[in-house]
Amino acid sequence: MSLNFISFLNLSKNLGAMASQSRRDLLHEIIFEADTPTGKLFDVVLLLLIILSVFVVMLESVNNFPLKVYDYFHVLEWAFTIIFTIEYILRLYAVRKPMKYALSFFGVIDLLAILPTYISLFLAGSHYLLIIRALRLLRVFRVFKLGQYLNAGNVIMASLKASRSKISVFLFFILLSVMIIGALMYLVEGGTNEGFSSIPKSIYWAIVTLTTVGFGDITPQTGLGQFLSAAVMILGYAVIAVPTGIVSAEFIRGDSGHKMLQNNTQSCRYCGKEGHDDDATYCKYCGEKLDAD
Amino acid sequence: MSLNFISFLNLSKNLGAMASQSRRDLLHEIIFEADTPTGKLFDVVLLLLIILSVFVVMLESVNNFPLKVYDYFHVLEWAFTIIFTIEYILRLYAVRKPMKYALSFFGVIDLLAILPTYISLFLAGSHYLLIIRALRLLRVFRVFKLGQYLNAGNVIMASLKASRSKISVFLFFILLSVMIIGALMYLVEGGTNEGFSSIPKSIYWAIVTLTTVGFGDITPQTGLGQFLSAAVMILGYAVIAVPTGIVSAEFIRGDSGHKMLQNNTQSCRYCGKEGHDDDATYCKYCGEKLDAD
Amino acid sequence: MSLNFISFLNLSKNLGAMASQSRRDLLHEIIFEADTPTGKLFDVVLLLLIILSVFVVMLESVNNFPLKVYDYFHVLEWAFTIIFTIEYILRLYAVRKPMKYALSFFGVIDLLAILPTYISLFLAGSHYLLIIRALRLLRVFRVFKLGQYLNAGNVIMASLKASRSKISVFLFFILLSVMIIGALMYLVEGGTNEGFSSIPKSIYWAIVTLTTVGFGDITPQTGLGQFLSAAVMILGYAVIAVPTGIVSAEFIRGDSGHKMLQNNTQSCRYCGKEGHDDDATYCKYCGEKLDAD
Amino acid sequence: MSLNFISFLNLSKNLGAMASQSRRDLLHEIIFEADTPTGKLFDVVLLLLIILSVFVVMLESVNNFPLKVYDYFHVLEWAFTIIFTIEYILRLYAVRKPMKYALSFFGVIDLLAILPTYISLFLAGSHYLLIIRALRLLRVFRVFKLGQYLNAGNVIMASLKASRSKISVFLFFILLSVMIIGALMYLVEGGTNEGFSSIPKSIYWAIVTLTTVGFGDITPQTGLGQFLSAAVMILGYAVIAVPTGIVSAEFIRGDSGHKMLQNNTQSCRYCGKEGHDDDATYCKYCGEKLDAD
Repeated sequence: MSLNFISFLNLSKNLGAMASQSRRDLLHEIIFEADTPTGKLFDVVLLLLIILSVFVVMLESVNNFPLKVYDYFHVLEWAFTIIFTIEYILRLYAVRKPMKYALSFFGVIDLLAILPTYISLFLAGSHYLLIIRALRLLRVFRVFKLGQYLNAGNVIMASLKASRSKISVFLFFILLSVMIIGALMYLVEGGTNEGFSSIPKSIYWAIVTLTTVGFGDITPQTGLGQFLSAAVMILGYAVIAVPTGIVSAEFIRGDSGHKMLQNNTQSCRYCGKEGHDDDATYCKYCGEKLDAD
Repeated sequence: MSLNFISFLNLSKNLGAMASQSRRDLLHEIIFEADTPTGKLFDVVLLLLIILSVFVVMLESVNNFPLKVYDYFHVLEWAFTIIFTIEYILRLYAVRKPMKYALSFFGVIDLLAILPTYISLFLAGSHYLLIIRALRLLRVFRVFKLGQYLNAGNVIMASLKASRSKISVFLFFILLSVMIIGALMYLVEGGTNEGFSSIPKSIYWAIVTLTTVGFGDITPQTGLGQFLSAAVMILGYAVIAVPTGIVSAEFIRGDSGHKMLQNNTQSCRYCGKEGHDDDATYCKYCGEKLDAD
Repeated sequence: MSLNFISFLNLSKNLGAMASQSRRDLLHEIIFEADTPTGKLFDVVLLLLIILSVFVVMLESVNNFPLKVYDYFHVLEWAFTIIFTIEYILRLYAVRKPMKYALSFFGVIDLLAILPTYISLFLAGSHYLLIIRALRLLRVFRVFKLGQYLNAGNVIMASLKASRSKISVFLFFILLSVMIIGALMYLVEGGTNEGFSSIPKSIYWAIVTLTTVGFGDITPQTGLGQFLSAAVMILGYAVIAVPTGIVSAEFIRGDSGHKMLQNNTQSCRYCGKEGHDDDATYCKYCGEKLDAD
Repeated sequence: MSLNFISFLNLSKNLGAMASQSRRDLLHEIIFEADTPTGKLFDVVLLLLIILSVFVVMLESVNNFPLKVYDYFHVLEWAFTIIFTIEYILRLYAVRKPMKYALSFFGVIDLLAILPTYISLFLAGSHYLLIIRALRLLRVFRVFKLGQYLNAGNVIMASLKASRSKISVFLFFILLSVMIIGALMYLVEGGTNEGFSSIPKSIYWAIVTLTTVGFGDITPQTGLGQFLSAAVMILGYAVIAVPTGIVSAEFIRGDSGHKMLQNNTQSCRYCGKEGHDDDATYCKYCGEKLDAD
């Protein structure tokens, strides 16, 4: 509590010092960075507001509360939206290149996080899209300097990116497969089974089955249909191994690639280059003899 | 748009030039290849027609439209089929060895993609098999030179092929397991539970359960049945790891095999040693300058 | 057909030759081995009989046929059982150490494959256990010399055996987890939800959920119950990765272990030992200089 | 039986010897260790009591028994609780630093394993939490010296710990995803579908779907909803590969790390090179005899 108060005093002091300092640079430091106490306080408060705001949106959709509570929710929602709108404008003002921020990932998210409330004036129900505010929580890694987690996220993204073309081809095959399976099941079950009343619905069933989700809202009734389904499932058994195998291989490759980089820290006395193998005696770039271990 | 027009002009010009040129070779270039503007235009139009045609087949199976719409669908379906039939005949005409094309993967698909409409004259409902046209979309990789994706597809196929015997043995064991599980469940639940009214049905349930699809259309009701099911599921938990492990190992092996192929084949002029990195200028064993690649 | 006839002639000739030859050795060759035409014919006929017999057991449990058909099934079942009983006795007679065969894997299966019919005389319904005959089909690998598949099966078994202790510990943790999750869900949902009417039933639900089977015959109804379930599922998401990771690692280790053995085929001139590293210049067992290759 | 009797005699003898020996040390040996026959007997009896006690808790929740049986269950439950309470007090008395034990993992479990019975005097139903006693069974590894399994458990824990940050980031993304998917599905299906009556419920559905559990208690009814669901499932198909890939990579890394640790640290007396195999007698680089172990 006292820390927060000191931070508040700092904020006041800082506001006073604005006359002499560049106001925009200070604002930038507070809003965009989390290295100063004021900047960190700002970010922590912001994260709390985001969490609260998301909770309000979620609760608003529940029908169990007395009517009056929804009025409070409504007020809170507008309060959050106004706060986030001011924050968005301040961000645009503080940053040197406003367009660059506005078009960045977080810039777009920040805008999408306030728009639904305004749109809901014209289009009822759209304010539930405010839940996109949750994406603003991604800032948490930056605010609390969770470098380890940021790094982990990057490794995951890199592995997924590296396996992108394989995953795409795989999903393309899956799409073609479920279309053909869907049509077959429609022919077999369509006549007697409400669930397979059209090919798109049968394709929906095929996707539900092949991904092993298996809702059970649509199930084959005829013997032939059940036989076909069993074949599809056993196929899916082997098929589900493919994306896992792809991504696993990528993670392992990523790991060993990483290890390789760390492997040898020797640098050549003459040309200073690094990246020598462990069994190297001479620099592979300039031919200079390397230090013995 | 203007590009398409130019392509059209090219097509006209080309058609005019046919008298002097080999007509079949030109047709081959247009229909089978995608390196010329005309050839690419042909393929793009073809892909669009295929997508449209598949959509029509899917929509035709939906019951929500007014009756008149189905007449349009019917006309469109015949139009697509006639176009694809002409294309198929042209392909047979253009290619040097028609039988080889007719018996190739795409040749068979191309034929299967037109047959159902004609068969539907005698056998109602069979025209839904037209959805097999979707497989013709596999040409998309060739048309747009998506080499990276073609390569990814080959890697996947190679990994699956390499693990074929392991996957087959695994599926054979799974088949035997579900038969025995099915018979046991039939004995336990068969008397009281509608869902386990026969061994084939119980085997269907065992497959649904072991593959973790879990529709829930058939579920054990007795305590013993639920105990057995729980055992089957926990078994399945360990078992689902097997195909994934097989394919993962294959992908990783494939990766390292690939890496090995890229390894540098340079050998030192002086000491003859190999295993140099791609960026090496001097031999790392004796310091001799390496040949410039 | 003619081949079968020749085989039959061979069989007759062989039977005639039995007087001079050891009858039991010949029988052993025919029944246990598949290297002679007669032996192979015997095994193929046997496999077909097993498949037929399993089909009859499965069809017998289906209620759709006219009553008379079940009489045929009954006769067929006894015919198969008598044939397999004679075969079992012949096996005991032909083999040198009957007890060793009787206690071997296939010996036990062969006995279990005939017992249920006899037991069904006293205990109705037990004859459905005849489906265990399906396990006799495992002989198919030996009969058709499917060495590649036998080998694949061994690799899978070896990988599973190597990961046995890890999988066991993992399943032990899973068992403890589902017990605690089950008790918690019973406390939360037990009062109002028919499905969670006892702890064993709730544990059954927990297993269905954690293994991602998700029948949906029992589902949480209260908000708290659904929240807990969601937590269990997300936990299960991370947890399902464990057995897969274990087995994958084992498969990959198995692969590389295999590769290592193949790696270097050099053997020492002096002591003849193998297993040298690729970069070895001297024998690591006796110090003799290795051939430069 | 006779062994148990001898053990009992030993116990009596030991109790007699307590006057001269440190009573607490002996108690410690019996209760905390399993190296002496008495200590092992104590642990085995304890494990059996735990298993029995857990079974009683589970059976007590089943409603099928005659009323009188529940009285027996009640008596048994109090008997177990009193035994475990005495054991807990003895443990506190026997150990040198009682607080350290009380705050250790097993200390906390041991306390939690007796509390619910006492709490149930004030709060009906809470005694079902006694199932937490199952966690006391983790001692089984120590009692039966299942070192191999303890080791396997450590490897699993190490792999999970090493992939903790990646799994956390992954789960964070999953949480954000299911929130947004849930809100979208609420907008699409909320109006007409009972199951999607609020955003939290829709998020519950999204978790059920993305983890491929697929209960089917809530399923999309509209065409758009089914289309969105299919997209979510296919996304989940690629996504489920991520945790598996992470953990697999960790297991494989762990394996190779382990192998590295076993690597021989011997270095040649003459040329000083390392990297010798465990079975090497001579240096593979210069032929010098290596030191015996």
